[in-house]
Amino acid sequence: MTTDTGAELQRDPEGRLRHFLTLEGLGRDELEQLLDLAQFYVRTPGDMPPRDQTLAGRTVANLFFEPSTRTRVSFELAARRLGADVVNLDLQSSSRVKGETVLDTIYTLQAMLVDVFVMRDAEPGLPAYVAQHVAPHACVLNAGEAHVSHPTQGLLDTLTIRQRKGDLRTTSVAIVGDILHSRVARSTGTALLALGVGELRLVSPASLMPEAGELADASRYHSLADGIRGADVVMALRIQHERIPDSASLDIDAFNREWGITAENLRYAKPDAIVMHPGPMNRGVEITNEVADGPQSVIRQQVSNGVAVRMAVLATIVRNVQARNVEAGRRAG
Amino acid sequence: MTTDTGAELQRDPEGRLRHFLTLEGLGRDELEQLLDLAQFYVRTPGDMPPRDQTLAGRTVANLFFEPSTRTRVSFELAARRLGADVVNLDLQSSSRVKGETVLDTIYTLQAMLVDVFVMRDAEPGLPAYVAQHVAPHACVLNAGEAHVSHPTQGLLDTLTIRQRKGDLRTTSVAIVGDILHSRVARSTGTALLALGVGELRLVSPASLMPEAGELADASRYHSLADGIRGADVVMALRIQHERIPDSASLDIDAFNREWGITAENLRYAKPDAIVMHPGPMNRGVEITNEVADGPQSVIRQQVSNGVAVRMAVLATIVRNVQARNVEAGRRAG
Amino acid sequence: MTTDTGAELQRDPEGRLRHFLTLEGLGRDELEQLLDLAQFYVRTPGDMPPRDQTLAGRTVANLFFEPSTRTRVSFELAARRLGADVVNLDLQSSSRVKGETVLDTIYTLQAMLVDVFVMRDAEPGLPAYVAQHVAPHACVLNAGEAHVSHPTQGLLDTLTIRQRKGDLRTTSVAIVGDILHSRVARSTGTALLALGVGELRLVSPASLMPEAGELADASRYHSLADGIRGADVVMALRIQHERIPDSASLDIDAFNREWGITAENLRYAKPDAIVMHPGPMNRGVEITNEVADGPQSVIRQQVSNGVAVRMAVLATIVRNVQARNVEAGRRAG
Repeated sequence: MTTDTGAELQRDPEGRLRHFLTLEGLGRDELEQLLDLAQFYVRTPGDMPPRDQTLAGRTVANLFFEPSTRTRVSFELAARRLGADVVNLDLQSSSRVKGETVLDTIYTLQAMLVDVFVMRDAEPGLPAYVAQHVAPHACVLNAGEAHVSHPTQGLLDTLTIRQRKGDLRTTSVAIVGDILHSRVARSTGTALLALGVGELRLVSPASLMPEAGELADASRYHSLADGIRGADVVMALRIQHERIPDSASLDIDAFNREWGITAENLRYAKPDAIVMHPGPMNRGVEITNEVADGPQSVIRQQVSNGVAVRMAVLATIVRNVQARNVEAGRRAG
Repeated sequence: MTTDTGAELQRDPEGRLRHFLTLEGLGRDELEQLLDLAQFYVRTPGDMPPRDQTLAGRTVANLFFEPSTRTRVSFELAARRLGADVVNLDLQSSSRVKGETVLDTIYTLQAMLVDVFVMRDAEPGLPAYVAQHVAPHACVLNAGEAHVSHPTQGLLDTLTIRQRKGDLRTTSVAIVGDILHSRVARSTGTALLALGVGELRLVSPASLMPEAGELADASRYHSLADGIRGADVVMALRIQHERIPDSASLDIDAFNREWGITAENLRYAKPDAIVMHPGPMNRGVEITNEVADGPQSVIRQQVSNGVAVRMAVLATIVRNVQARNVEAGRRAG
Repeated sequence: MTTDTGAELQRDPEGRLRHFLTLEGLGRDELEQLLDLAQFYVRTPGDMPPRDQTLAGRTVANLFFEPSTRTRVSFELAARRLGADVVNLDLQSSSRVKGETVLDTIYTLQAMLVDVFVMRDAEPGLPAYVAQHVAPHACVLNAGEAHVSHPTQGLLDTLTIRQRKGDLRTTSVAIVGDILHSRVARSTGTALLALGVGELRLVSPASLMPEAGELADASRYHSLADGIRGADVVMALRIQHERIPDSASLDIDAFNREWGITAENLRYAKPDAIVMHPGPMNRGVEITNEVADGPQSVIRQQVSNGVAVRMAVLATIVRNVQARNVEAGRRAG
């Protein structure tokens, strides 16, 4: 637990979450409370969306330096269904020459009474940097940070597994593919280990396996068949071409043959194994159409859970900030 | 009536409209109900916009693969004035490599409890393709499909004519110009014929006249003077440069001289003829400023009717889906 | 007061503001009423934003031909906190070939029951041009017009000075830098002179000083030390590279040395002088980080006041239009 990752930085002096930067350092109770609240917000497509006024009167800014329509819409709908006003800022990386410029944008928005900042960036460190500089009443949510962290994705994956498999402590989860460049693998792995998952397996070619120190309690496999044998959950990852140096060097066909999740090799996993993918999919590369759209796929359920998880995180953070303000007022009075 | 155009596809098993893909196959009563509801939502500029809560709690996504600020804003305001949440997705054609990618976007949004999809595309077939794949509770509205179909434009044109001319059965309508590439002409013509318009004339150079099988009950003219002589309604169309192969081959000046609606040649029409244009106008090409801004022009009224028609269509489709859900619940209970 | 600047054009026959195009011609009482109403809407970051329903049911369009995320968001939040619907139109300069095309966009939006147009443009004259053509119930707000005018910025600067310095009549204000190309300097200077500011100084190199006829009651200085000596307010301006012909000819380093506001030369001003900047800052050019982020800086307070001022202007204009409608109704009845 280092300040670098934001694990301490995201807490107020009483230890409550005031930002949401990383899943590192979150305890089992804390994670389960977030998952329980998210579950409360889950609806089936066709139902009316959940609505409450937890964020009524608040203004949320989506600051996406790395474009992602689906995650932006997921956060936007989460905030609006909690009664917030939302402004979207489409920021080109080119407009951010250095950190100072981002802070000027943040301070400008803060002066306009924006107090929730949802940030996505292709470089590491920005959410924590901003969190260190915002006003005490403001909060920062990490919506995807380089290869480092994507904490709401970690929660939504965990929620999906819990819904399908029940007790995590008896569940075996295999994460397959480009783990090295995956913020999803890091955040989901962190959540699962903190919740005492039965088994966490990292399954990838050596060139795409992270250092031994990362997700240290996971077991590591360099063969797909071995890695997913008997698993309850098979999680494919998006090949992160944009983060692979000299990406031409990755042989997509060879990767697909050896590491792609196909109906054939899925038989190594348990018969009732679920298949996950954080999207957007490279269909035909890390996963085939047959599997992505097949009966074991829970990919759309992950997306549904994404809005619910983001509602839970927004509601929790904003309530924590309010609680602190009330206490501060009581001390002052 | 073929499935290709979506005429059957857009109906539920009870025959109610659950999507809005095309005006083909709509009966006179059905069209008149839509027009009557639209008329209920019409306001004069300066009035407060109409408001109701027919779409309260629902989330509408505008998916525009072909950019169109005015149509996007028209649908956005229609949905918001009915109480819906709206998300706009600016999608580049380049981001859609093939249908599968669009479906992934649709399924993702559906999982986020978006259940109304408003789609515009420069290629034919996408709205029907998506309609075939969405969940039973979701619906697709065609906001402009290649040269094929633009059903809400067809309704708003018809509403405008009805407001100005009363009984369509005694009204003579001349559609002038680039009919071949015009989805507006196809949809407006279809609506007018279904409603028993007195006369529908297609007036265009041979190179821009559609095949004889299209709008078969219309009469065809290859001279502007003959075509609009005695007409009650003269509808100019936008030259669709982007759909004319080797568009350099179209001599704009010659087109303007021979087919442009000018104050001078408008005298061939009835003295109280109205002039329409679906916008955006190529001023000085298919229509002169004098006519576009003159006393016979109803172009702004068309735009006003556009929001009203979109409110009527959204309200109708969503009510039909709700009715089906209630019936399904009754059968299940 | 000429029609060119919009000073007369922005008033209805009874002399009330129906547009907000320029601060020219506004009297002291009128300015103070706007500032008082803006003060009513001021909140401290951390407070809930002010809310009322003055614009409930109305639709505001932001038409920005010159991109500006911060000003667009400021107007968007101002309008939404007054209960309006807001649509943003991102318009490329390229899409506006000539005024007629802008008018077609305006008329289209007006037909959709949009009745408040917020416009920013890099060329002079557009807001007044549009104001001359909109319907009687519609209004135009200038959100920045070339080098000519930025009236809400003028008000927010004035409000900030009033909050910090109290009586403007005993306050000395120095505007420093690229005054020639600054719409902010023109609007803020106009407001301060109309309110009887103690002293207004224009401090800039000869090449960036406007003609003698502009802000004629201000004194002019060609040395930074002389210009800010004893001033209560030092206002730095953004170097407007995009408006400086052959901008390569401006030596940024030399400008910074001679005209940049640094902690060192700020000592020429009064010890309690405040430092202002309209943003976005070229840090290290017209202002140093030390000053921008230092204790004398009120730059963030300016931004906060910006939303409040825009709420005040929107509320005032819309109420004036409503009052006129009521009177018109009374006369008609």
